[in-house]
Amino acid sequence: MLDQIHWLAAVTVLGVLEQAYFLLQVIYARRLFGISPPKTSGPPEFERIFRAQVNSSEYFPIFLAVLWQAGLFFHQGLAAALGLLYLYARYCYFMGYKASSSERLAPIYFSAGVLWILIAVSALGILCFFLSHYVGLNIFQRLTA
Amino acid sequence: MLDQIHWLAAVTVLGVLEQAYFLLQVIYARRLFGISPPKTSGPPEFERIFRAQVNSSEYFPIFLAVLWQAGLFFHQGLAAALGLLYLYARYCYFMGYKASSSERLAPIYFSAGVLWILIAVSALGILCFFLSHYVGLNIFQRLTA
Amino acid sequence: MLDQIHWLAAVTVLGVLEQAYFLLQVIYARRLFGISPPKTSGPPEFERIFRAQVNSSEYFPIFLAVLWQAGLFFHQGLAAALGLLYLYARYCYFMGYKASSSERLAPIYFSAGVLWILIAVSALGILCFFLSHYVGLNIFQRLTA
Repeated sequence: MLDQIHWLAAVTVLGVLEQAYFLLQVIYARRLFGISPPKTSGPPEFERIFRAQVNSSEYFPIFLAVLWQAGLFFHQGLAAALGLLYLYARYCYFMGYKASSSERLAPIYFSAGVLWILIAVSALGILCFFLSHYVGLNIFQRLTA
Repeated sequence: MLDQIHWLAAVTVLGVLEQAYFLLQVIYARRLFGISPPKTSGPPEFERIFRAQVNSSEYFPIFLAVLWQAGLFFHQGLAAALGLLYLYARYCYFMGYKASSSERLAPIYFSAGVLWILIAVSALGILCFFLSHYVGLNIFQRLTA
Repeated sequence: MLDQIHWLAAVTVLGVLEQAYFLLQVIYARRLFGISPPKTSGPPEFERIFRAQVNSSEYFPIFLAVLWQAGLFFHQGLAAALGLLYLYARYCYFMGYKASSSERLAPIYFSAGVLWILIAVSALGILCFFLSHYVGLNIFQRLTA
């Protein structure tokens, strides 16, 4: 069973490491700008780093959910590759947002695009499973036949 | 294996689409009220939409965790049906909160109720598995015998 | 299959119950200090409870992700034991933060330590699987041989 999920698991742990990196950046920024918890507001430089981390945090469960559905129901390798692309886009987003509000835009659009592809791939994979399971219609076999 | 999780996977992807819809609503509200990131405060109309999305985001991993445990350890169809009910309640919550703070109350209580049922079903399913696995006591067989 | 995940499932449901407890604490604090949603600012006593819940919420998907990878790829019992330790540290963190900002520090460092161990165990387990699957090298067998 593990050979059907090992790439998904590897990308998941890489994603966790990325989240840990973002969280550490917020801790460093808190020290740099002297903003102690529970405060979350401060100069724009701090607020951009803080919001970049919060936004990445919000998307993380969504990302994991579609990464795994896409990998289980469509293709593990494709899902993992898209997952790596997403994590790279998130890194660019964080670094861009840290520099300026406008520099977050290009990578956030790119990461959203990758996420939509993962959603589409998940939906397609699950749809094909339903068709094959309940109607007996195997689309992929048909296409390659 | 996939036939034990395909309904859970379908509800998961539907939940992701709902989260994406909430996130888009916040983006539209930011444009409408002219509130650029990283700012998160503004008129009450904006703050209600923003908080509705943040709250739904916070509950999403909790929801997925119990949806899957309930489906794996108790009954996939029941878990998926409760999952759909939860997503419907969350939609009503978001729309209610958008209109006024008080209109969020009825659907948030309803969604919390569905979540508690999913937690109870998960706990019951896991408990039965422990009893059957370690004590050799099969409760469901006893009840139907 | 369920006997490879039942301890992970039990710790997951326990974690959900802990999150529910934190969320209820915020609701009680909102009533006590008279802070109605969508407002999230108020006296430091309220803001500490609010931030403790938000922080625990942010870490919950990260925790679940490594709990399951560690359990699936390394050892279920060890992962579940570390998971219980993490949930206990999170409880101490919440109670400490509620009392004062400085009392959150010891348990947050402890919980971060447990999380890093879970990440290391996950990474090690996945690495061993890759080595055994693609290179044919079984490290654990070598160590015990």
